[in-house]
Amino acid sequence: MTMLPKQFLLGRPLRTAQMGETLLPKRLALPVFCSDPLSSVAYATEEILLILALGGTALLHLAWWVGAAIVLLLVVVIASYRQTCHAYPGGGGAYVVSAENLGRNAALTAASALLVDYVLTVAVSVVAGVAAITSAAPSLAKHAVALSVGFVVLLTIVNLRGLKESGKAFAVPTYAFVLGIYVMFGFAAVRMATGTHIRAESAHLPIHAMGTYGGLGLVLLALRAFASGCTALTGVEAISNGVPAFRAPKARNAARTLAVMGLISVTMFVGITFLAMVYRVHVTDDPTQLGLPAGTSTPTALAQIAKASFGNATFLFYYVQAATAGVLVLAANTAFNGFPMLSSILAQDRYLPRQLHNRGDRLVFSNGVVLLALAAIGLIVAFDADTSSIIQLYIIGVFVSFTLSQAGMVRHWSRRLAETAAPAERRRMRRSQAINALGAVLTGVVLVIVLITKFTHGAYIVVIAMPLLFLAMVGVRRHYDRVAEELAVADDSRPEAPARNHAVVLVSTVHAPTLRAVGYARSIRPDTVEAVTVGVVPEDAEALRARWDAHDMGVPLKVLDSPYREITRPVLDHVRALRRDSPRDVVTVVIPEYVLGRWWEQILHNQSALRLKARLLFTSGVMVISVPYLLGSAQRRTEREDARRAPAAAR
Amino acid sequence: MTMLPKQFLLGRPLRTAQMGETLLPKRLALPVFCSDPLSSVAYATEEILLILALGGTALLHLAWWVGAAIVLLLVVVIASYRQTCHAYPGGGGAYVVSAENLGRNAALTAASALLVDYVLTVAVSVVAGVAAITSAAPSLAKHAVALSVGFVVLLTIVNLRGLKESGKAFAVPTYAFVLGIYVMFGFAAVRMATGTHIRAESAHLPIHAMGTYGGLGLVLLALRAFASGCTALTGVEAISNGVPAFRAPKARNAARTLAVMGLISVTMFVGITFLAMVYRVHVTDDPTQLGLPAGTSTPTALAQIAKASFGNATFLFYYVQAATAGVLVLAANTAFNGFPMLSSILAQDRYLPRQLHNRGDRLVFSNGVVLLALAAIGLIVAFDADTSSIIQLYIIGVFVSFTLSQAGMVRHWSRRLAETAAPAERRRMRRSQAINALGAVLTGVVLVIVLITKFTHGAYIVVIAMPLLFLAMVGVRRHYDRVAEELAVADDSRPEAPARNHAVVLVSTVHAPTLRAVGYARSIRPDTVEAVTVGVVPEDAEALRARWDAHDMGVPLKVLDSPYREITRPVLDHVRALRRDSPRDVVTVVIPEYVLGRWWEQILHNQSALRLKARLLFTSGVMVISVPYLLGSAQRRTEREDARRAPAAAR
Repeated sequence: MTMLPKQFLLGRPLRTAQMGETLLPKRLALPVFCSDPLSSVAYATEEILLILALGGTALLHLAWWVGAAIVLLLVVVIASYRQTCHAYPGGGGAYVVSAENLGRNAALTAASALLVDYVLTVAVSVVAGVAAITSAAPSLAKHAVALSVGFVVLLTIVNLRGLKESGKAFAVPTYAFVLGIYVMFGFAAVRMATGTHIRAESAHLPIHAMGTYGGLGLVLLALRAFASGCTALTGVEAISNGVPAFRAPKARNAARTLAVMGLISVTMFVGITFLAMVYRVHVTDDPTQLGLPAGTSTPTALAQIAKASFGNATFLFYYVQAATAGVLVLAANTAFNGFPMLSSILAQDRYLPRQLHNRGDRLVFSNGVVLLALAAIGLIVAFDADTSSIIQLYIIGVFVSFTLSQAGMVRHWSRRLAETAAPAERRRMRRSQAINALGAVLTGVVLVIVLITKFTHGAYIVVIAMPLLFLAMVGVRRHYDRVAEELAVADDSRPEAPARNHAVVLVSTVHAPTLRAVGYARSIRPDTVEAVTVGVVPEDAEALRARWDAHDMGVPLKVLDSPYREITRPVLDHVRALRRDSPRDVVTVVIPEYVLGRWWEQILHNQSALRLKARLLFTSGVMVISVPYLLGSAQRRTEREDARRAPAAAR
Repeated sequence: MTMLPKQFLLGRPLRTAQMGETLLPKRLALPVFCSDPLSSVAYATEEILLILALGGTALLHLAWWVGAAIVLLLVVVIASYRQTCHAYPGGGGAYVVSAENLGRNAALTAASALLVDYVLTVAVSVVAGVAAITSAAPSLAKHAVALSVGFVVLLTIVNLRGLKESGKAFAVPTYAFVLGIYVMFGFAAVRMATGTHIRAESAHLPIHAMGTYGGLGLVLLALRAFASGCTALTGVEAISNGVPAFRAPKARNAARTLAVMGLISVTMFVGITFLAMVYRVHVTDDPTQLGLPAGTSTPTALAQIAKASFGNATFLFYYVQAATAGVLVLAANTAFNGFPMLSSILAQDRYLPRQLHNRGDRLVFSNGVVLLALAAIGLIVAFDADTSSIIQLYIIGVFVSFTLSQAGMVRHWSRRLAETAAPAERRRMRRSQAINALGAVLTGVVLVIVLITKFTHGAYIVVIAMPLLFLAMVGVRRHYDRVAEELAVADDSRPEAPARNHAVVLVSTVHAPTLRAVGYARSIRPDTVEAVTVGVVPEDAEALRARWDAHDMGVPLKVLDSPYREITRPVLDHVRALRRDSPRDVVTVVIPEYVLGRWWEQILHNQSALRLKARLLFTSGVMVISVPYLLGSAQRRTEREDARRAPAAAR
């Protein structure tokens, strides 16, 4: 019965040959890869306004400029990544591009940045989604951590089912969100065109400045607002990573999906920011800035815009709120696609444990999915499901990988140009290179801005984590290389038999398993064979010897002393002594084991054999033979498992 | 380095032959076995007053009668157990006595009762001790669970060091407590004799009755107060259990220690109850009964008595409080001596897992100590370290075992009388039997009273737990018997060699471990030998075959298909197919393993071999040979361990 829940949750196992069936059409690829970048417009505008609010109502007008800068950046980065889709149809994540063009260190830096950011994407998105739910239903607020963890677990199960199913599951909320925002724009446009004077509910609350900002201070505040608004760009690279998951023609379909995503993203961001400014939305981290009592919870900027836009059509307001919550939780899915694929590539390159390269029953990299979920849950619990703390760690990794990826692409085109002669093709390449160069410079500048303005607000944690991850990956690679070197054999080496083989049968009493082990030990024709027992209680050892002789075992019985009541140590010492006599010999330890079928039965029997086997493994030149004797319960278990497996094998 | 902390905490391992050195002189046996019964006088009087308080100030005078009944019971039970010490010098716990005289079911009932009660002793004593501390330092109150768990861990470590050391550690607080109480009596006597009119701080607070008690209601209230006061008897049986731990003459020394304990217990209980009545100590579970605001914390009865007795000598008050807290925490030690010994006896009789019968490095039954600690910690956490909840579960088990033990003794003397002729000896036996019969009847009546008055207050949990434990023990015994029967061999059976031996070497690549495994497999001269690999990726399998041929392996290589990317299943199917061809043959699976020295290195390598070995164990007629290949790190680990062990071996 143990397999049934797994199959119920994850669906039937898929054959390796069924791989092609999981490829995505564009209309499913968009929600699978873009729920993160699309959903981030739900909070990007608010993040800008929150920072500018520190300077009071007077500085809010800077949001026009900050918003414009972000739109420009978004357009450049998307154009830049479209080049990558075409250049790397096999999947052009920052790691692959950096590895090919900038070398190992750049690649591992990009990889560290991406891994950290994927975890943060899950944590931030899920926590923000839960925050949207708990502000609608405040009674759930005290369960925020449990709810967030629950959503991560739900996402994990959906993703373990595999890529295509998760595409379907995510299509609805993503499209529902986009539709909701556009309907909101339509409402706002019609009502404003017909002369309605719309204002947000917070428009009448003047914001008290937290300090005086002028000169350099003003510039820094604007830059910090810009850095916070850059959350709108997170996840843009997901499509270029996932090109192989698209249907053919992969590169063209991916580039088109990226363009569509860019169009939707930019229009939503521009529209939301425009309405926020026109409606005079006032949001602050500290409600006292608005003259409200400390601890007052204020609606999000998007909620205020939706409420104001829809006026009396409150059901549409609730629709937008629900869709926002839905898409925010699902945005985490982008990371659930990216993280396992990247870690699988890293595992294949031996920078991460190779288990991360195994595809599970449903052809997804199951271990990567689970690892991501655990890391995100850890982060959510550690930060007590508080969005504003976790979001500070965000974006640094994104811009590290953006910059490396675009810089790598510039190098890529240089190399391609060097080997291409056709003028038309060269022109196209030069154009692509120019776009990537612009992208590299812009994202590099933004990275510096983000680092400066966010470092003391928590981003230092990421600045510490990334190098640690980098070093860990270098360490793992070095370990695998060293092991491979130790295990390598010369081309002319041949299997070699040991000089002599001493068999030692471990015995505690005379029963069926013992007889079988002795019989087997004699059948492998060792040069010497003896039975050995540990005499903790001298009387027991004497009784054993008497039975031994009565049964005509044909091999001598040796009793080892054990004044400290240990089992393992005397056996180890005896085996080593045998080896010491002639190091080219081997010792074969034969262990009779009786096998029980139920887990609780195992507890009832001494685990000495298990412990001894583990220790003997660390003694060189010692072979360990388990001679199992299946008791009734073990035989029945095997039969049950066979019966259960029969229908599966017939598939 | 892994062994050093263990030795630091537990001391050097002791030889089995050093057993005699851990025997106890009387002056150490008293605190080791009696901290529980002696300390219970610290709360027994209070428990009586708390129940009587439900009937208001007017009913407090009943405490005289309830107290007298408890003293009578205490004297009878102690006299009764003194007979047991003489009759069972090998340790006369309720289990042993019931088993010999009343049969298996009575013995297992007594054993269940004792095991449950040992766990409760630890939980109640530690939690009560911590409550004493937290009422002195209220800021610690919110850490009550953590503190309680901490004390249990501390007790565990002390007890793992062994009996004698723990006797020393516990002698000081126990004697300090007894001394403190007697000094308090002296102060009170002298001050009252010189005409001082002493009253408790709560004497002026009238108690509001929670209901009207008359007729049967009054009798039931008195009985409930009596049942609660019977906590004074807990732990009395510890000495008769522990006779073998005494120095010779064991039985006489044990009986004498029991008498001394009875004397101390009775005088302390009588004195405390007398002073409580004279000082008019008023205690309630609900402070509103005293006209105090809800939630007010009131001092314990003993604290009020001590404060009133010492008057201005407040440092003596603090001394008594500290000694009480100390002895209460240490009372748990009685259980730490009793539980491991009883579970070891039960394990020897095959009613509990046999690991509970292993003596650890320091000659104590380490597994029993750890099991007791875990159960007590679970109880403390589940009941949130709340004394008044846990104490409701207490005493039932005590009186079940009391009754069975005394009844068993009556039967014991009947049998002895049947085989004894000497009149003087017969007279002594008749006297002993009369004492035990009185004890059996009295404790049986008390058991019924306790069951009736405490059942709905939480005691039902114990009434459920005991039969479950009983059934579990019967199940364990049945399992061991069945296994022994399955494993038994006829006297004329001899070791038998398999008809033919098919060797299968599992291969994933060609490296040093593979060469060694192939060489070894050939050296054991099987009838057939082949190498087998699982072809998850067809290209890899082809590459392996090419290398295989280049290295002249001398055995054929077979590639198994695996469409679902499994490793274990194809190998299992292949091995079974070999077996199916001729069931009298065996299959020997040879697994090359490379061994790494550090735990984190294990994570980096596929665990397939481990999983496969576990599954092969459940396939009958399949022998599994591990052919280890030690890498540098594993060799260095072995050398390090040897170097560390050298001085220990020289002992």
